[in-house]
Amino acid sequence: VTDIEFRSDNSAGVAPEIMAAVVAANSGSALAYGGDAATAELERLVREVFENADARVFPVGSGTGANALAVSSICPPWGLILTHATAHMLNMEAGASSMFGGGAVIRGVPGNDYKIHADGLEAALGAVVIGDPHFSQPSVLSLTQPTDRGTMYSLAEVEAVSKIAHDHGLRVHMDGARISNSLVALGCSPADLTWRAGVDVLTLGATKNGALSTEAIVTFDDRAAEELVFRTKRAGHVTSKMRFQSAQLIAYLTDDLWLRLAANANARMARLTAGLQTLGLDFLNRPDVNIVFLQVDEQLKNGLADAGLLFHEFEPGVIRFVTNFQTTASDIDDALERIAALVA
Amino acid sequence: VTDIEFRSDNSAGVAPEIMAAVVAANSGSALAYGGDAATAELERLVREVFENADARVFPVGSGTGANALAVSSICPPWGLILTHATAHMLNMEAGASSMFGGGAVIRGVPGNDYKIHADGLEAALGAVVIGDPHFSQPSVLSLTQPTDRGTMYSLAEVEAVSKIAHDHGLRVHMDGARISNSLVALGCSPADLTWRAGVDVLTLGATKNGALSTEAIVTFDDRAAEELVFRTKRAGHVTSKMRFQSAQLIAYLTDDLWLRLAANANARMARLTAGLQTLGLDFLNRPDVNIVFLQVDEQLKNGLADAGLLFHEFEPGVIRFVTNFQTTASDIDDALERIAALVA
Amino acid sequence: VTDIEFRSDNSAGVAPEIMAAVVAANSGSALAYGGDAATAELERLVREVFENADARVFPVGSGTGANALAVSSICPPWGLILTHATAHMLNMEAGASSMFGGGAVIRGVPGNDYKIHADGLEAALGAVVIGDPHFSQPSVLSLTQPTDRGTMYSLAEVEAVSKIAHDHGLRVHMDGARISNSLVALGCSPADLTWRAGVDVLTLGATKNGALSTEAIVTFDDRAAEELVFRTKRAGHVTSKMRFQSAQLIAYLTDDLWLRLAANANARMARLTAGLQTLGLDFLNRPDVNIVFLQVDEQLKNGLADAGLLFHEFEPGVIRFVTNFQTTASDIDDALERIAALVA
Amino acid sequence: VTDIEFRSDNSAGVAPEIMAAVVAANSGSALAYGGDAATAELERLVREVFENADARVFPVGSGTGANALAVSSICPPWGLILTHATAHMLNMEAGASSMFGGGAVIRGVPGNDYKIHADGLEAALGAVVIGDPHFSQPSVLSLTQPTDRGTMYSLAEVEAVSKIAHDHGLRVHMDGARISNSLVALGCSPADLTWRAGVDVLTLGATKNGALSTEAIVTFDDRAAEELVFRTKRAGHVTSKMRFQSAQLIAYLTDDLWLRLAANANARMARLTAGLQTLGLDFLNRPDVNIVFLQVDEQLKNGLADAGLLFHEFEPGVIRFVTNFQTTASDIDDALERIAALVA
Repeated sequence: VTDIEFRSDNSAGVAPEIMAAVVAANSGSALAYGGDAATAELERLVREVFENADARVFPVGSGTGANALAVSSICPPWGLILTHATAHMLNMEAGASSMFGGGAVIRGVPGNDYKIHADGLEAALGAVVIGDPHFSQPSVLSLTQPTDRGTMYSLAEVEAVSKIAHDHGLRVHMDGARISNSLVALGCSPADLTWRAGVDVLTLGATKNGALSTEAIVTFDDRAAEELVFRTKRAGHVTSKMRFQSAQLIAYLTDDLWLRLAANANARMARLTAGLQTLGLDFLNRPDVNIVFLQVDEQLKNGLADAGLLFHEFEPGVIRFVTNFQTTASDIDDALERIAALVA
Repeated sequence: VTDIEFRSDNSAGVAPEIMAAVVAANSGSALAYGGDAATAELERLVREVFENADARVFPVGSGTGANALAVSSICPPWGLILTHATAHMLNMEAGASSMFGGGAVIRGVPGNDYKIHADGLEAALGAVVIGDPHFSQPSVLSLTQPTDRGTMYSLAEVEAVSKIAHDHGLRVHMDGARISNSLVALGCSPADLTWRAGVDVLTLGATKNGALSTEAIVTFDDRAAEELVFRTKRAGHVTSKMRFQSAQLIAYLTDDLWLRLAANANARMARLTAGLQTLGLDFLNRPDVNIVFLQVDEQLKNGLADAGLLFHEFEPGVIRFVTNFQTTASDIDDALERIAALVA
Repeated sequence: VTDIEFRSDNSAGVAPEIMAAVVAANSGSALAYGGDAATAELERLVREVFENADARVFPVGSGTGANALAVSSICPPWGLILTHATAHMLNMEAGASSMFGGGAVIRGVPGNDYKIHADGLEAALGAVVIGDPHFSQPSVLSLTQPTDRGTMYSLAEVEAVSKIAHDHGLRVHMDGARISNSLVALGCSPADLTWRAGVDVLTLGATKNGALSTEAIVTFDDRAAEELVFRTKRAGHVTSKMRFQSAQLIAYLTDDLWLRLAANANARMARLTAGLQTLGLDFLNRPDVNIVFLQVDEQLKNGLADAGLLFHEFEPGVIRFVTNFQTTASDIDDALERIAALVA
Repeated sequence: VTDIEFRSDNSAGVAPEIMAAVVAANSGSALAYGGDAATAELERLVREVFENADARVFPVGSGTGANALAVSSICPPWGLILTHATAHMLNMEAGASSMFGGGAVIRGVPGNDYKIHADGLEAALGAVVIGDPHFSQPSVLSLTQPTDRGTMYSLAEVEAVSKIAHDHGLRVHMDGARISNSLVALGCSPADLTWRAGVDVLTLGATKNGALSTEAIVTFDDRAAEELVFRTKRAGHVTSKMRFQSAQLIAYLTDDLWLRLAANANARMARLTAGLQTLGLDFLNRPDVNIVFLQVDEQLKNGLADAGLLFHEFEPGVIRFVTNFQTTASDIDDALERIAALVA
């Protein structure tokens, strides 16, 4: 049997349009370190796409780099970063935020559906004596949209917790490693989901959705942007051939490519989860975008593996399926057929 | 009415024996930065008191400095420090461990009686994939003895969790800000409670128990000691007139002064809590040493304050009483009398 | 007139063989974060090319990232990194080594021909009291090969200063941003120039010599490698689609491509400098590889610019020409013709 | 023979007035961490003494702590701290400024008489491309007054270089480890030598001039003060019994005690250097305050040591004599007599 890739959207390849843009960019020479025409064009395009004339964009090499540098630009070393207890930044980035943040502290906030809600945020803020230097001072709210568990904030939810954050003097970061999937699922504009909803600094994911070698930080806050000029460089995230990253991001944001790629991943997941439900399987999360978690027994897990389904065992007994921009309709049909045979 | 001091053992003054030692040390001149005879004598004495010929002692200026520097000496920058969810180091030290640790991450472990138990520790260790760089790697177990909530680990409990830690390659720090109170309460030797039970590096508290201007780190681990030579200096915790800190610590450890001072605090608390129970008041913690927490309504809280009882309002509705080396029998009698009048 | 690119080898594009490898790698899916077959093959190839069965390779996103992470893996936070007073790491990397090094200090050592020699190194070591924590402790010698000023250490020179470093307990880093140019110029093997000459950790440059989006750290020291597993990740330099970096590096190191590309750059520079000398122009450096510096007056500088020669004004009155893997014989002929017209 | 102490002013004891203040402060209890009456009184007094109603004071444990925390409060992590090539902060503080500064870089500026002059400062500033993130950005000018080599800036010199610094957007730190010696030598007011001359943040030395266990940071800049509230705490430099540090500083600044103590040290040095000149010995520095350096041969050096003169061998062949607040007239007479016997 042919393997079917559901391990991670990181496992997918590069979208043809993006690869073509990279190949096309390899012509002539250019100033290094972002002093090239493509990088200037990228900034123009980001401002257009996000409908914000002051937005700035900083291509970086990875999501961990983007997240940690983004929050370091809006958090003092004695600051406290509040994020959901299940957030990638808290659990899977090896303390990068504390390192780039000069010893800043990141703390998990509980909340159902893997999201921070008003009550959880207010409780976390209330546990700190503001101005008392014994306490790391709340400085950043980081929202993951969609969450690592495949759920999603509504626009109203983003606005609500961002408002509380701003009212308490925090700034708001959005980890948008898969933000295109949320944009598609919500049907809202990039501006609506970010700065209009209170986001100051965005991790704009691209790699999970078809890019080759770039993610980006987008800022809607001048101070953050000023800091990032220096912070990205000394982190080694300002590459000499930045133009090849910029070319990828231009292709990605042009003609809604990012949304079309994400729409495929979302649609495939919708078909997959509908099929799983028909088969009587239920999920641990509401599969709002392209990720679903299932509780499986040892026998089913092994059966799925033997049947050529590639998945990630998240924790004992819990497996994750992720669709991506390359997942095809027949991948889903084949997968459901194989699963049906197992659960029959 | 005269105020009675129960806010914190930090609020107390300096023990007469220690003040006398400081005054006596002010004679002649000496090499700075620990190159003096008193500091050499202190090291000899620490080795004798802790029955460990390789122990090293590093006088530092504060408990926060001692804790953060101690753990930084046994934790790589990508390490994870596990401590109880209520630990001072996690909640009240402004991220000092992350700063001195180069971005190391500290995480709270739940556990009843404000202590880390085997199951909690094993769950925390099990949540990390060892060797996978996405995860901060468990490197230090930090035990607070007694805990900030006034409870205490038994010797067997220290040994049990230290063994698990060592078996997983972690090293063990003990935050002994009030270790003398535990030594008295347990009736065991300093060696038994520390290195013989698996402690690699100790924060040896002195200020809360009668010292003027010093705490200390005591190491039972050569690598940690080698690092601390440099780490304490660049943190600004190697003072030029270290001999005056060493003189305090010599007086503190001589003729069991530290234990006698702690014994007073413990005995006063025992009398206070016995009296409170007689009055029908109950506690939120088992008052093993010199700290008790009570849940009080607004009326009683205000009454206590009006009656000249100085206490710390820990959180809304919860107050803390702490006795110290200076608390007298009549302080307790007076306090109980005033409380009795309020609860009558 | 057509511009001729001499600003920097960073301004060049991507070598066709490397671009082809990237395109070819975009097939199927793979485990992220280096868990793929190409990355495994890269490690095998590095061990073969460097004739060292224990070598490890870590693809990273930039030279600054490679240098700073490399030295952080062999330097304690209280360490001193010694490099030449003109080194890139000291002057052009925004303090990255101090950040990743946890506050480590980097200090410039003077030396003629832009190189560290035995006397300069010994003087720098002699200025520090080893073991005295007032002094940042010498921990790393970082050699730039070739230097940023276009000169080069002989094998004997690398061995001589590395031996002094090792004898004093330091470890040796080589900033090989352009190491392929030196390998060609010296005609020696990668092993001879690195670990056999005393190098513990190497920054293996690729971007300046035709790669698209990768540099690498190569270690010949197990401790450094163990640290880099974690240090690269938390710096955001472990990308999810690492296989596309590995594919570039495999192409780069296969069939001596890196040496052939560098040989072109060196040969073009040799022709250029020979021509310049014929024209009576002299250099500030011995142009051992692909870089030359000239002192020019305002009139000549402007003339060169007007003539379509792209160069970098290094400091007032000093300009730099750099050739690269794409520079053609006719580029050089045209350039010399235009220069001849100006100096006539 | 009796030893005569010239090694360092750090080797001296505690001034009787200060010890008396510490003993007197040991009465009753008080809020910890600076929430006490003495610390409030100290702030009032500092404002009076420095004639600046917005000044803030932060007692800390050491000069290294004071310097590093002071500069960290006025320097971004990507900043460059400029200080003299011979400054303590650059050479003898183990990289503390880089650690507390989050990887900030400190660079030495040459200048005769061990001072930074306008030309040296301008050259250092000119070597950096402002706004280009390859370069650590000049952020702090740190002046040592008096210098570690016993020379001194005039008021006009402080003003001149501070003005250049401010004109370039830097803020100015003064390492006043021995500022009282300069105040006496210059006969100017504390306000004149600090904020009126352009100093934003001051390290106010006390330990070398008679204090027991405290130095202080004094700020004339609100932003720096706001940062120091948090920075001092997480560095472990906010002690629970701060009132005993405040008591020392109150005594120190009351009735000009600090100036009287420094005046003794200066006067003794003046007498010593006059005597040395009479004996035909010359100095390496202009001994403006209480420090003198002499070049001596091996025979004289050993003779001085055998004669009971305690001094510091700064480097081979160079020795340092330092007088302090306790040095007596007969110390000097005895010393000169013994030296005379040696050089006869």
